[in-house]
Amino acid sequence: MRPCHTLVHAALIVTQDEDRNILENASLAVLDGLVAALGPRSEMTAQWQPEREVDLGQSVLLPGLVNAHTHAAMTFLRGLADDMPLMEWLNSRIFPVEQKLTPEIVRLGSLMGYAEMLRTGTTSCVDMYIFEEAALAAADEAGLRCMGGEAVFAFPSAAFSGPDAVLDETRTLAEKYANHPRLRIGVNPHSVYTTTPEILAACRDLAYELALPLHFHLAETAEETQICLHTHGSRPTTYCHRMGLLDAPCTLAHVVDVTPEELDFLAASGAVVAHNVSSNMKLASGTAPVPAMLERGMPVALGTDGAASNNRLNMFTEMGRTALLHKLTGMDSTLLPAQTVLDMATLGGAAAMHDQRLGSLAVGKAADCVALDLTTPNMQPMYNVVSHLVYAATGMENRMAMVDGEIVYMDGKFTRFDYEALCREMVQVRNFVRGMAERA
Amino acid sequence: MRPCHTLVHAALIVTQDEDRNILENASLAVLDGLVAALGPRSEMTAQWQPEREVDLGQSVLLPGLVNAHTHAAMTFLRGLADDMPLMEWLNSRIFPVEQKLTPEIVRLGSLMGYAEMLRTGTTSCVDMYIFEEAALAAADEAGLRCMGGEAVFAFPSAAFSGPDAVLDETRTLAEKYANHPRLRIGVNPHSVYTTTPEILAACRDLAYELALPLHFHLAETAEETQICLHTHGSRPTTYCHRMGLLDAPCTLAHVVDVTPEELDFLAASGAVVAHNVSSNMKLASGTAPVPAMLERGMPVALGTDGAASNNRLNMFTEMGRTALLHKLTGMDSTLLPAQTVLDMATLGGAAAMHDQRLGSLAVGKAADCVALDLTTPNMQPMYNVVSHLVYAATGMENRMAMVDGEIVYMDGKFTRFDYEALCREMVQVRNFVRGMAERA
Ligand SMILES: [Zn+2]
Ligand SMILES: [Zn+2]
Repeated sequence: MRPCHTLVHAALIVTQDEDRNILENASLAVLDGLVAALGPRSEMTAQWQPEREVDLGQSVLLPGLVNAHTHAAMTFLRGLADDMPLMEWLNSRIFPVEQKLTPEIVRLGSLMGYAEMLRTGTTSCVDMYIFEEAALAAADEAGLRCMGGEAVFAFPSAAFSGPDAVLDETRTLAEKYANHPRLRIGVNPHSVYTTTPEILAACRDLAYELALPLHFHLAETAEETQICLHTHGSRPTTYCHRMGLLDAPCTLAHVVDVTPEELDFLAASGAVVAHNVSSNMKLASGTAPVPAMLERGMPVALGTDGAASNNRLNMFTEMGRTALLHKLTGMDSTLLPAQTVLDMATLGGAAAMHDQRLGSLAVGKAADCVALDLTTPNMQPMYNVVSHLVYAATGMENRMAMVDGEIVYMDGKFTRFDYEALCREMVQVRNFVRGMAERA
Repeated sequence: MRPCHTLVHAALIVTQDEDRNILENASLAVLDGLVAALGPRSEMTAQWQPEREVDLGQSVLLPGLVNAHTHAAMTFLRGLADDMPLMEWLNSRIFPVEQKLTPEIVRLGSLMGYAEMLRTGTTSCVDMYIFEEAALAAADEAGLRCMGGEAVFAFPSAAFSGPDAVLDETRTLAEKYANHPRLRIGVNPHSVYTTTPEILAACRDLAYELALPLHFHLAETAEETQICLHTHGSRPTTYCHRMGLLDAPCTLAHVVDVTPEELDFLAASGAVVAHNVSSNMKLASGTAPVPAMLERGMPVALGTDGAASNNRLNMFTEMGRTALLHKLTGMDSTLLPAQTVLDMATLGGAAAMHDQRLGSLAVGKAADCVALDLTTPNMQPMYNVVSHLVYAATGMENRMAMVDGEIVYMDGKFTRFDYEALCREMVQVRNFVRGMAERA
């Protein structure tokens, strides 16, 4: 008998390993935050002596999903304003409130966003916002895995006086979290249209110097393309390519308005795309050419974007909408089959986090996993568990979230923070925001 | 003090009445299956003496959603085959199994489908299938409200030898359920492409004779239009218009491939459209011109279609996808705002059921309501409850389903049938279907 920290039993394990093995009546042994072994329950219980045993019964255990692009803090704005033209929405609702932001609002908004992610089966995210240190503190509090970074703009934010100060902050955060088991820093120029060539070059150089991934918004709308053509004489993706930005490890959010030639050099660069289907639909931004990306072998992940433009941080919602939208727009019901979409939310997500320990359950991988109840009506009957994960599950079937070997959510309870207290604090935040929005 | 059967308390009541009133800290009194009164909790508790009191705490009470087009029995096929071309899917997977159907499979599949509806906030549906009497029996067992009908085809089904036998069955069912409080019969020619002009005329005449609504698939795909042009010399909607089908009370499923002129006479006819956004996306059928329908003042409802092409029977999924898809395809983020979409799932649904007691909570309306927990992370914080219902809720927040004044689902328990036994029976059904599918 070999010792392990936790032994988890489930009716099914969807491993997402190279052969996409699915194990029935199986167990997973966790040691030091990693998967020590997995296999048939009878063999595993004979071989492993756990400190703690968790029997998930009629559940499917799978790798925790990865939210490849979000602004978790914006959860504090959920439903404040919908159904508006983009510029009116930004100028009249979002920006006035964001100018009065405090680290405490960012911490509380982020914590609620991470709570939603853990509750609905997501264990990792790629995050970008202002006062990001407070967002990272919240991720630590919740126990989520996060690659976060302070957004770099050409202008001051509520948090920093300008791009130089943000790059200094990025350097500080990278040092602070250098050895953190779950938190990691990215370099986050907000976008092409909110920065300058000099800022992008500085971000690129810092990413190389500190070996940090770049994460930014790219080619979200046709309007962005027009602005970029006017200002820089090239389309956004071409412009970033010429700046050498795409040669560093990159996670690119949106990538909607892109040409076949741009896709070709994106594919050659190895850049990871975070597809934000809900946000692109709600803001009427357009449809990213995901089938064309996948044809080229590009790594494509899924993201929720912020709650202000979604309004959920639920990766099961993103999987369902992704699978359906591209069938419709491609006029082909065979496009983006369930397994492909699950791969995007897991293995694609690992690429977006630039962390190959994530996205699958195999020996030596991170013990990041979630478990969906198979007994709810929408999961009945079951012929194909992968179909159910993509087409039938809402995410609310999730019973457990384990990150880095630690159970941080189980059957309605968050283990590391007081959820009821957070709800009470969110009422205060809402009242503050309402005051801001009314004065704007 | 006036006596009532049930007094329900909730933090919010979204009434969907003419003024779209939303009541805070309010109560609803139920007497004889109807709403007897609703108002502030303090006034209601002073005025009403209930047999039973239900305090839903931090929940929002709203009219039960209406699933305006479904084949609940097809839940038994959920996830059997996805991501296939339509004709291959029908011919190789669905039809071989449907030819071996039994009333018992229809009853079990329907009961599981109705369980999912009640669990996720739907209290009524417009249903069509073969062996529909078994589906109606399941609706009665679950306590759901249903307008159901046996599908009429030009050819034999597993249940009936041909269209005449189905029309006889419709007559029998209409008599049997004439005075049922929750069940009602529709006349259901399956579609233009599976019937003949003679069959459609017979359906139309029966609908008039018995004063039953018509419910059928119409203009689902461009391919259907081509077949109809070839066979009948006109487009499907025009063909039905000329047949006089649209002058009877009608619920028309899909209505995707339709011209502006056809929309004009549809609007004049008063026909109700059931928009099936998930099914249309998953089968790559196309995008129904919903904004153009709403502009013409047409009643538009939402439906899930069957689980074989969705794969959920969850109206919160349909609301979210409807709100988002039409913003994207119309390239306008102000299209189909949240209130409009909630209206489609409630008041539009009442029109599709041809029952004006449904879809809103006001004195004299049916006591059909559901209650969503507002304390889950995805519902936090809250600025606008209607936004949360459409954009944030998954449907799994639902805690209660009341139909005709009776609580049929509450906090994980179905009150009228044994859900665990149903799950066990579904395993048998699945094994039978797998055998069928393998022999096909
Ligand atoms: Zn974003
Ligand atoms: Zn249908």
